[in-house]
Amino acid sequence: MQFHHYGYISGDPRIRLADEKCADRDPNLPQVMDVLIVGAGPAGMIAAAQLSAFPEIEARIIESRPGRLPLGHADGIQPRSVETFQAFGFAQEVIEEGYHINETAFWKPDPSNPDHIKRVAWTEDDPAGISEFPHLIFNQARVLDYFRRFMERSRSRMPVNFGWQFESLEIEDGEEYPVVCHLTSTREETFGEKKTVRAKYVLGADGATSRVRSAIGAKNSKVISNHAGGVADVLVDTDFPDAMTKSIIHSTHGSILHIPREGGYLFRTYVDLGDLDENDAHQIRNTPLDEIIAKGNEILSPYHMDVKEVAWWSVYEVGHRVTERFDDVLPEERGSKDPRVFIAGDACHTHSAKAGQGMNVSMQDGWNLAWKLAQVLRGYSSPSLLATYNTERQPVAQDLIDFDLEWSGRMAASDEGDESIEDFYVRTWEFPSGFRTEYKPGLLVAHDAKQELATGYTLGKRFKSYRVARRSDGNDLHLGHLHEADGRWRIYVFADSAPASAPESKLRTFAKWLAQDEASPVVRHTKPGDDVNSVFDVKVIYQQGHHEFELLDAPEIFRPRVGPLQLEDKNQIFGIIDIEGVAEKRDSLYPLTRNMFAKEDIFEARGISRDGAVIVVRPDMYVAHICGLEDTESLSAFFEPIFDLSK
Amino acid sequence: MQFHHYGYISGDPRIRLADEKCADRDPNLPQVMDVLIVGAGPAGMIAAAQLSAFPEIEARIIESRPGRLPLGHADGIQPRSVETFQAFGFAQEVIEEGYHINETAFWKPDPSNPDHIKRVAWTEDDPAGISEFPHLIFNQARVLDYFRRFMERSRSRMPVNFGWQFESLEIEDGEEYPVVCHLTSTREETFGEKKTVRAKYVLGADGATSRVRSAIGAKNSKVISNHAGGVADVLVDTDFPDAMTKSIIHSTHGSILHIPREGGYLFRTYVDLGDLDENDAHQIRNTPLDEIIAKGNEILSPYHMDVKEVAWWSVYEVGHRVTERFDDVLPEERGSKDPRVFIAGDACHTHSAKAGQGMNVSMQDGWNLAWKLAQVLRGYSSPSLLATYNTERQPVAQDLIDFDLEWSGRMAASDEGDESIEDFYVRTWEFPSGFRTEYKPGLLVAHDAKQELATGYTLGKRFKSYRVARRSDGNDLHLGHLHEADGRWRIYVFADSAPASAPESKLRTFAKWLAQDEASPVVRHTKPGDDVNSVFDVKVIYQQGHHEFELLDAPEIFRPRVGPLQLEDKNQIFGIIDIEGVAEKRDSLYPLTRNMFAKEDIFEARGISRDGAVIVVRPDMYVAHICGLEDTESLSAFFEPIFDLSK
Repeated sequence: MQFHHYGYISGDPRIRLADEKCADRDPNLPQVMDVLIVGAGPAGMIAAAQLSAFPEIEARIIESRPGRLPLGHADGIQPRSVETFQAFGFAQEVIEEGYHINETAFWKPDPSNPDHIKRVAWTEDDPAGISEFPHLIFNQARVLDYFRRFMERSRSRMPVNFGWQFESLEIEDGEEYPVVCHLTSTREETFGEKKTVRAKYVLGADGATSRVRSAIGAKNSKVISNHAGGVADVLVDTDFPDAMTKSIIHSTHGSILHIPREGGYLFRTYVDLGDLDENDAHQIRNTPLDEIIAKGNEILSPYHMDVKEVAWWSVYEVGHRVTERFDDVLPEERGSKDPRVFIAGDACHTHSAKAGQGMNVSMQDGWNLAWKLAQVLRGYSSPSLLATYNTERQPVAQDLIDFDLEWSGRMAASDEGDESIEDFYVRTWEFPSGFRTEYKPGLLVAHDAKQELATGYTLGKRFKSYRVARRSDGNDLHLGHLHEADGRWRIYVFADSAPASAPESKLRTFAKWLAQDEASPVVRHTKPGDDVNSVFDVKVIYQQGHHEFELLDAPEIFRPRVGPLQLEDKNQIFGIIDIEGVAEKRDSLYPLTRNMFAKEDIFEARGISRDGAVIVVRPDMYVAHICGLEDTESLSAFFEPIFDLSK
Repeated sequence: MQFHHYGYISGDPRIRLADEKCADRDPNLPQVMDVLIVGAGPAGMIAAAQLSAFPEIEARIIESRPGRLPLGHADGIQPRSVETFQAFGFAQEVIEEGYHINETAFWKPDPSNPDHIKRVAWTEDDPAGISEFPHLIFNQARVLDYFRRFMERSRSRMPVNFGWQFESLEIEDGEEYPVVCHLTSTREETFGEKKTVRAKYVLGADGATSRVRSAIGAKNSKVISNHAGGVADVLVDTDFPDAMTKSIIHSTHGSILHIPREGGYLFRTYVDLGDLDENDAHQIRNTPLDEIIAKGNEILSPYHMDVKEVAWWSVYEVGHRVTERFDDVLPEERGSKDPRVFIAGDACHTHSAKAGQGMNVSMQDGWNLAWKLAQVLRGYSSPSLLATYNTERQPVAQDLIDFDLEWSGRMAASDEGDESIEDFYVRTWEFPSGFRTEYKPGLLVAHDAKQELATGYTLGKRFKSYRVARRSDGNDLHLGHLHEADGRWRIYVFADSAPASAPESKLRTFAKWLAQDEASPVVRHTKPGDDVNSVFDVKVIYQQGHHEFELLDAPEIFRPRVGPLQLEDKNQIFGIIDIEGVAEKRDSLYPLTRNMFAKEDIFEARGISRDGAVIVVRPDMYVAHICGLEDTESLSAFFEPIFDLSK
């Protein structure tokens, strides 16, 4: 956490200095704005939070509810989402508050007494160590709270405008604010009052029945729907041995997905209600709670759940839907027209709740779009950049539906086939954990990347963090966790094997080019008068331990001067972790702060070339380019079209 | 974090349900109260925070300042203090926000050019692994903020009453609220207005010039004072290579203690101004800032600090003072009279700032007293318990002064003698880290403890945490970090080597006694109608891994029923960490949540007998008793006098 460089901060440094023109902003919805976000669910709120970081952008989010969501239904939080929360500064709080899924128990009919269930397996979550972040159960309502707090503490002090229902929109081409939106008040005191606002861009994050989606005429294909279930959040008295463990239960009477929730006493239970008759016509939705509980207890036999209190319950039919396009550009217009209206989250993809995907994929939708909108609205990129949102996210939605169809099918099936459900769960873990996304080469992922220079960082996938030693203060920390949701690109410069103090090295040559050459992205794309690190966050990682070189060995580009006093930022220079005599200090809780391991070499762990490498990471954490220290032309060429305002 | 068991919580679970009678409490100072705390510094605020946990106690804290402290001067946070913050629920935030002292650099005159300084050593902080918590630099003002937030979120919604100056007090023996305190308003609108309030107990945490101390006539001995220094918090441009590392600098021109602060840009520098002439008469305090900066730069040669902004500066004379007693009971009255008025923190001990001790020791004073006040005021103990505050804390103050005299003397000395300053620093680390305190056997530390049953837990010292696997959900976590500042005693029951499922074992016999025997402290001292874990938080730790036994193997006393629905708390049962195949998952950030190690056996690590052991830990985390599973008489006998209301 960096502060004091824009003036002494006496209070909570997480509360940013308000931008001058935002400090006393009118909380009411203005007539005209850069971005209007419709729907304050996870997809909309992450987009709003990202945009709130830039006070020069006038962005607003409306929500038809009159206020805060009191009871969220989504509750599965993937490691990738926790990683994302880290960038927004609230991962630790969520980790503290959430239930940690550390393992899953599998129960099946006891062969010696098939009427009874028996535990057959435990699988560890994330068996391959894909992420250092945990898999959590955490209430959607609290996720929204944290994003809202981020907005309130941001430089723009962005509010949520509750009580507005989106009705329709039309686009008036050629206008500066071409999207005209018609809204209706849902607040008691002004109910039904109409308001028309104009925006440059609109994001519809308004759920499965999205009106924004209808407005842009995007087709929402129904893939399949033939299954129903009951779901309830309950406080119970139970002798089920794995009550506090996520359990997948198949009995001869049906199946249950049992999920312990935050706080230690509440449980989410999904009770399968079987395949639907084609002519059911939603009759299943009338299933009473008692019947669901009775069915659950039948499945659970010989164990029992005595329900003491029900916080929420529902009957659902599994529907899988995916939207053909994520913006208002028709297939025949692609390449010739820039999008103005976007949709995200449930508006684009709906599916079963069983794999805990909905909220997570939706947030990645919102983040993907928001940093690009910021890049355009802040004058760094032309609007054509925004076409990449549909290109990148629509295939993810399709993959999601495909995965969930398979997963929910297996959950419901009584016959396992060739692969047990627990083996399937372990084998496919990368997908539900949120790390399967791999963007293809295009405008935002380099075509000429040299994957062989950093085999541990797959091009197009998220940058997988690793521990390094900060030269300035000897702290070891996770390099990737320094990535904040601030819209900046990361350029990680991995040094060649020459000592840091060597007067000449490939690293020095590269650093000089990056600092001074007119083809350097830092020189070319940073606005005059702005801090040198305002667009590109450049860090260097040496192959030496932090006691083996001096801070001032690092070229000046790695010690950027910032703020009104142009103070030197001394914290962007790293070495590998290589400290003697600390291997025995193993019972640390907070390795962020402690030297737990004698040697942890990021070069070795992530397969980085000993000749050095440059890794470019996008504002949403995806690896965009990998090149050598000598590949300066490739680096220039990669950024040139992204920052080309003439396109 | 446990919640939902007293009703569904939709918002932040850190905000406790307000007690009925406190929800709309009058924030103004009442006429009569149980406890009046004078002074909202670290000692007073921790005491207030602890008392705020109990809505049945009417406690208030007054402060002569009109509002929040904008600029705190103390900034060193020991690992023991971070451990304490963990119990109050805000350690992670402080860790995130503070500067982490991971190592200290030592600079001395360069032998080849004595006018220049040269780095001669780096010492790692906490080289012996005394604590899993880090050593931080963190602003006192923020510490106070966090305690205040704890109070505001507590069941009692306790406010801080700013704007009241304590003037004097008298005691009217025999009255229910015998301490009569005279206050004066310092608020602008009511300046000088007088108010008299009555309290059962008063804590003077009103600093070095404590009026409460004067009121009880406690002598404050001056030990020595012959040294002066300049101190400043500065934003600088510097080429000093260790600017971001805590550095102890001795040059031929004098010495500097250089401390990087939170945020990455601010530095605290202590510039030695040498020994004082006996006749100086505080003339040194007129030293101008420029002179201090010039002196600093002379010491730093060949490096330079260009001061860009000064957040705060001062000239100080080192004074060492310690108070003879911490309460209003005269030596000749000890044993025959119970104390009514106490003092804590700077009111009891003042010394140099160099070892970063002040705020830390003060907080332990406040906590030591506050849980005892709660024990008495909640009707669990007789007022005679309060005599242990003076008995336990006064010797700590004396040790502190002795340590600081030696440390500040060495910091100022140009001649090192037989031991280098860096060797001294490493050798004595336990003291400044806050873990040297060892309370002697007495009312609150057992006389007949069997230290040999748990060699890793020194009787009278703080319970040193270790990692265990929770049976309920397979999470591995730090046992000690589950200890909240809730006034409860911890009884850690370490099982004998019999399998958990064995129908008979020493553990089962003990558990039965603890649950049912009329001599059991749980049976005897828990109030009728209260939850079984309301006074004693009982946990069991088995010698098996968590997959090797079932939750229901554990006797019922380890699955207490709580709250209005009397739901079973399934989270008090633990095993050792023993998971195969996870040793390679080494790059975790959050081991709280992840199985980092294949095997971590608390029995082995803390020298716990394989025949089992019972470890009693006080509400302030100190080990109070160690006995065997068969030593039930000893356990009864230990608690009996503490909970004896007739004394």
